Amino acid sequence: MSHVTLGELSAFLAQNGFANDVDGDSELSISAVNTLEDARNGELSFLSNPKYAAMVARTKASAIIAPPGTDNPGGLTMIHCGDPYAAITAAIIRIHGYRKHPQWGVSEKAVVDASATIGENTSIAPYVTIEPDVRIGANCTIYPHCHIAAGAILGDDVTLFPNVTIYDGSQIGSRVTIHAGTIVGQDGLGYAPLNGKWLKIPQIGRIRIEDDVEIGANCALDRATLGETVIGAGTKFSNGVVVGHGAKVGQNCMFVAQVGIAGSAKVGNHVVLAGQVGVRGHLEIGDNAKVGAQAGVGSDLEPNGEYLGSPAIDKTQYIRSIYNVQKLPKMKERISQLEQHVAELRKLIDDQKSDK
Amino acid sequence: MSHVTLGELSAFLAQNGFANDVDGDSELSISAVNTLEDARNGELSFLSNPKYAAMVARTKASAIIAPPGTDNPGGLTMIHCGDPYAAITAAIIRIHGYRKHPQWGVSEKAVVDASATIGENTSIAPYVTIEPDVRIGANCTIYPHCHIAAGAILGDDVTLFPNVTIYDGSQIGSRVTIHAGTIVGQDGLGYAPLNGKWLKIPQIGRIRIEDDVEIGANCALDRATLGETVIGAGTKFSNGVVVGHGAKVGQNCMFVAQVGIAGSAKVGNHVVLAGQVGVRGHLEIGDNAKVGAQAGVGSDLEPNGEYLGSPAIDKTQYIRSIYNVQKLPKMKERISQLEQHVAELRKLIDDQKSDK
Amino acid sequence: MSHVTLGELSAFLAQNGFANDVDGDSELSISAVNTLEDARNGELSFLSNPKYAAMVARTKASAIIAPPGTDNPGGLTMIHCGDPYAAITAAIIRIHGYRKHPQWGVSEKAVVDASATIGENTSIAPYVTIEPDVRIGANCTIYPHCHIAAGAILGDDVTLFPNVTIYDGSQIGSRVTIHAGTIVGQDGLGYAPLNGKWLKIPQIGRIRIEDDVEIGANCALDRATLGETVIGAGTKFSNGVVVGHGAKVGQNCMFVAQVGIAGSAKVGNHVVLAGQVGVRGHLEIGDNAKVGAQAGVGSDLEPNGEYLGSPAIDKTQYIRSIYNVQKLPKMKERISQLEQHVAELRKLIDDQKSDK
Repeated sequence: MSHVTLGELSAFLAQNGFANDVDGDSELSISAVNTLEDARNGELSFLSNPKYAAMVARTKASAIIAPPGTDNPGGLTMIHCGDPYAAITAAIIRIHGYRKHPQWGVSEKAVVDASATIGENTSIAPYVTIEPDVRIGANCTIYPHCHIAAGAILGDDVTLFPNVTIYDGSQIGSRVTIHAGTIVGQDGLGYAPLNGKWLKIPQIGRIRIEDDVEIGANCALDRATLGETVIGAGTKFSNGVVVGHGAKVGQNCMFVAQVGIAGSAKVGNHVVLAGQVGVRGHLEIGDNAKVGAQAGVGSDLEPNGEYLGSPAIDKTQYIRSIYNVQKLPKMKERISQLEQHVAELRKLIDDQKSDK
Repeated sequence: MSHVTLGELSAFLAQNGFANDVDGDSELSISAVNTLEDARNGELSFLSNPKYAAMVARTKASAIIAPPGTDNPGGLTMIHCGDPYAAITAAIIRIHGYRKHPQWGVSEKAVVDASATIGENTSIAPYVTIEPDVRIGANCTIYPHCHIAAGAILGDDVTLFPNVTIYDGSQIGSRVTIHAGTIVGQDGLGYAPLNGKWLKIPQIGRIRIEDDVEIGANCALDRATLGETVIGAGTKFSNGVVVGHGAKVGQNCMFVAQVGIAGSAKVGNHVVLAGQVGVRGHLEIGDNAKVGAQAGVGSDLEPNGEYLGSPAIDKTQYIRSIYNVQKLPKMKERISQLEQHVAELRKLIDDQKSDK
Repeated sequence: MSHVTLGELSAFLAQNGFANDVDGDSELSISAVNTLEDARNGELSFLSNPKYAAMVARTKASAIIAPPGTDNPGGLTMIHCGDPYAAITAAIIRIHGYRKHPQWGVSEKAVVDASATIGENTSIAPYVTIEPDVRIGANCTIYPHCHIAAGAILGDDVTLFPNVTIYDGSQIGSRVTIHAGTIVGQDGLGYAPLNGKWLKIPQIGRIRIEDDVEIGANCALDRATLGETVIGAGTKFSNGVVVGHGAKVGQNCMFVAQVGIAGSAKVGNHVVLAGQVGVRGHLEIGDNAKVGAQAGVGSDLEPNGEYLGSPAIDKTQYIRSIYNVQKLPKMKERISQLEQHVAELRKLIDDQKSDK
């Protein structure tokens, strides 16, 4: 964490491609970034979601990053910037930086098999267990109570937070972060029915996690029965995400918490799955698809679409059908009225007939 | 576990505010509490859910707590009491008490940084790892394979079951219980899009868990990006619950298993979320709201209401719309009949015309 | 892993009840089994799901197991067999076998209470903790960072993968496998309301897991409040499955990932619950029922049926109602047309009247 003046910050943002201008005191020194609600004197905040605009007048922050044209209630220094969310991200990185990990060297209280290779500057905490033929690259941090099973391979700059289990033969790229409690490479639900019981199919495939992936806490990512389960480069998962055996997830995807992907599903690049989405096995989701919370993907999805519902369909169509369901009482009333009118008309016609 | 006669138990219940009378043998000694189905001779059971009334005649329990007016099939001693569920709870506490934890002192096989402070009578198991500047209060129990990262603060009488991870800077109140495998304070899913990739936003906020909270197994509770994630005093979670960064959960809430709360959501006090409920970020749920299983909360919910469905709406309205959907085949039939009748009428009118 | 010729494999399959014939080179030696997509020269693959039929022409496998009548694109040796999925399972077992576990003996770095009994050939890894009065059978493998609490009983041939927690008094049968991060026997969500707060009910029951059960990673299976939670013999769970206190799950069931069963529910034998299914407490699901993904079981289900939806109903009926909802815009149009036609008819009748 390092102090910075608003003038310095403005220049830093400009250098990083965020055009901005300072409305107020450029000499003001900023100690931390905080929310509009929690910020104190000397801190910087931001306005991005218009939902929180009313809080600008109430914040105790000394400065905020806000879109051009945002009203200054007075007393605040404002950095006007077209993309406040991206600019505050840059400001947080500048002022706070990323977490510094403890440095354990290779702890004497870790159990590391003699056949394992550990790269330079890699830090292995107490109570880590590393089995034969594991290969770990340079500058990695392995927190306590992690287990890395035989033959697993980790690249450089990998972080495993505490209580992570890596099964045998798993392959993990460089700059991968795995949060606490996550399990990588366990057997999938692979059984063949045999005389009313389930016969276990040996799960002889592996899992491969590519570079720059970050996985949340308490996820569980299956190895493949045969071949590979793949998590593509740059993809990010939140907590409690589950991926079935043999699934292939593309690059730069984002899966929100509690998403579940069944075995052998193929998910394209830049796919966003919101919280609690479920995806059936053996299907394909196209690049850039966005699937809304709690949707259940039961068939292939085209690229670039937005989807909702269980089964997941085109978002607009889904919202219309929800709306139509809410209008069902009205429809029933119209049908009842029609029935009454038809009865009236029939009576009128009968009357005319008998008139003659 | 201590034996008690039914007379003693009746007096104990009365002292605790549960008016009751004993129908049968007050001298009978009770050794344990059990279900109607599993109870054996010498054990006490209870009838609360009327669904199980038929089992009273079949139970092998020697005594049961039941509502006034419950038929005695004979051979059973009955304690009649207006609230059998609360009374059996008191009886379980009287006869069985709560779990006694092992006493390890501060194990020599734990790794405790010299700068950490550990309160009186706190028990630290083997293979616990505690980083610098951690502060733990008195009478706590930290089970094996827990990791408590730098700067975390725990109050008095805290229990961490095995394999719990507490991230750096997390704050946990007094009388908090966290079940095995749960992760507290990991980074949330905070990224800004940058040139088709995801740029990680340092997660510099923290999580604060207030007093008297109990968290189930394998939950994952994010730290905040900025400011705090909060779990309010007295709130209870079941297993597999996930809370996103910056969410604020009120006091005395109850979240059933696999609930997911997205970032920055605000949940009021005494809110009950049933199993697998999902809550979108940046919205507000009012005090005392009850949300039914698998519901998806996509907009603010008023206090005191009951809600169901995805998107969650008023429960009565939701049940009516489900009913209406089930009646759709009938509606289609009525429309077809109307079409037929209209065609008939048109023909009749045409016939009358041509008659002239 | 052992090499085998196709002739040997064909004979082995026939012995195991899979009639087959070899179309091609019986002398060909097979080194491994793989998917059609990933297989290389010298490997065996299979065609079971017709969705992948087109890949037979493109595979680099040297041989495949396929249904009788499958076209041979040339260059492939085919083993024709009526049930290719079961046959490839047998072939994987023959060629690859099951995972071999490390042999630690009873590690000096494990903490095993003097009162615990450990069976012959059971392997206890470093950093395992075993409390008083635990009984573990023969030929078990307990991986690092597992904790087995006081009085728990494990049968023979049990495997606990890393970071598994077994709570006090849990009972686990023989040939049970529990994957990493899973928690067995924690307290359920048992509280009685008392003056606007939640009073914890001591959870004095236990959990019993019968023989031949396999549990995925990061599951959480509650002990009972009173009596037992039961997981029946031969049942298999995927990852992230949660079972509430006092639930009884039958034999040879299969629960796909993220299934949640609430307390006191009774699930019959051979029940299949697909991913993310939720089951309300205190209800009963009959033998052989199949419940589709994301369904919410809110009432008893008959044996042998197939169910879908939330609330879960008969599958055919559910699919029809989904279809009907999609047809709502069409129904609305028909109603509008009817209203128009009725107005026309009324006008015609009025005209005829005034004609007279």
